[in-house]
Amino acid sequence: MSLLAVGSIAFDAVRTPFGERARMLGGSAVHFALAASFFTEVSVVGPVGDDFGDAEYDVLTTRGVRTDDIEHVDGGKTFFWRGHYDYDLNVAHTDDTQLNVFGDFEPKLSEGSRRAEMLFLGNIQPQLQSEVREACESAELVALDSMNLWIETERDALLDVIARVDCLLLNDAEIRMLTGEPNLPRAARSVMEMGPRAVVAKRGEYGAALFTEDGFFAIPGYLLEDVRDPTGAGDSFAGGFLGYLDGRRAPA
Amino acid sequence: MSLLAVGSIAFDAVRTPFGERARMLGGSAVHFALAASFFTEVSVVGPVGDDFGDAEYDVLTTRGVRTDDIEHVDGGKTFFWRGHYDYDLNVAHTDDTQLNVFGDFEPKLSEGSRRAEMLFLGNIQPQLQSEVREACESAELVALDSMNLWIETERDALLDVIARVDCLLLNDAEIRMLTGEPNLPRAARSVMEMGPRAVVAKRGEYGAALFTEDGFFAIPGYLLEDVRDPTGAGDSFAGGFLGYLDGRRAPA
Repeated sequence: MSLLAVGSIAFDAVRTPFGERARMLGGSAVHFALAASFFTEVSVVGPVGDDFGDAEYDVLTTRGVRTDDIEHVDGGKTFFWRGHYDYDLNVAHTDDTQLNVFGDFEPKLSEGSRRAEMLFLGNIQPQLQSEVREACESAELVALDSMNLWIETERDALLDVIARVDCLLLNDAEIRMLTGEPNLPRAARSVMEMGPRAVVAKRGEYGAALFTEDGFFAIPGYLLEDVRDPTGAGDSFAGGFLGYLDGRRAPA
Repeated sequence: MSLLAVGSIAFDAVRTPFGERARMLGGSAVHFALAASFFTEVSVVGPVGDDFGDAEYDVLTTRGVRTDDIEHVDGGKTFFWRGHYDYDLNVAHTDDTQLNVFGDFEPKLSEGSRRAEMLFLGNIQPQLQSEVREACESAELVALDSMNLWIETERDALLDVIARVDCLLLNDAEIRMLTGEPNLPRAARSVMEMGPRAVVAKRGEYGAALFTEDGFFAIPGYLLEDVRDPTGAGDSFAGGFLGYLDGRRAPA
């Protein structure tokens, strides 16, 4: 196994000006894994409940995603998120979050998962990210995504795990929020002083920028005529990014 | 002569969170010409007053910009703009505009200017842009810039001149405003139905996107750590864009 992703596995209810769905497979680990599966073998870690059935597993396994480390909690319900977007699709409004089986989740990694060479810590509680980081000691590249909620409510735990990863992926507004620095290149430099040697600023429809000690590299977003629901876009981007990097590595 | 630019020649008073200047050389034609001068020979058309002296001419002529078609109005005062920016440097707030010599300006083009092969109609009243467009019949490529003010107050005159240019350059918000279409690729297509065969969406710090019948090409902006005053950034971008195109053309 090469790439391991921990993060939410969820059902989402989403409303946008262009449509509405009451229940869709979602979650950061799911979006990440589906995108990464186009480039490499990826394994998902996370808990699901009784409502997570064959139809959901099939979405992952038909793309070759390894589901051995998905933990089924008897009698439990899968993580649930309800949100909506107005015409500015860059801003998600959360209407309801039900942690369900994520409330008591303690990551249990198989031997294979512990030996992962590349690790993605998707957007979940920093403490859980920290435990998985700890368990995957030998990972050569560890990337972490987070969000404004944890910057506000779990800042210390978040800084603690950020110090132990190689790459931080965040929205540009969140990078500014984390560092208190309005200028993006300066803010990215400030993140690198916290530990990571690379920072990826996600800029919504405008694309992304990578910062390292050597400078930066920016790419524009691909312009789409039909955008109906941006949920999971950042996780899909991360999956493509890390999946591609892992797929290009020489076999061990 | 190869490239002709008509637009404002101005003195600007600008305040940003990072500094303040009471009087700087500015105006769309000036910013455009200075940037274009790095790639080709460029000539400026526009009126100035008695307050426009050798120091101002020198800024242009030391960069090789041709000033023969700058019209000096005896007893007149040069166009003046006062504005400020808050921390969002993408939004200019106009505090004062004094048209001065621009109030009665009637473009008088020299023979050489009339034979320009490439023409930039900088952001001034659409009627003036129209007159210059008319005078330069043989131009092979005509590009036009405008702004929200003219979209709101001179829509018919603006649509009339847009129908007779090859390329429209506008901020993305202005392209949406002009067309009433929130999606940028669709809005650009809608502009092309008005006449132009190319649309350049200026996206502030995020870069720019070019739309043609064949599709689009987007580039990110170069990320800067120190941004003090964005005045003229769009005109400088247009000058680099058209100046480069003109400089790459085979000599007639």
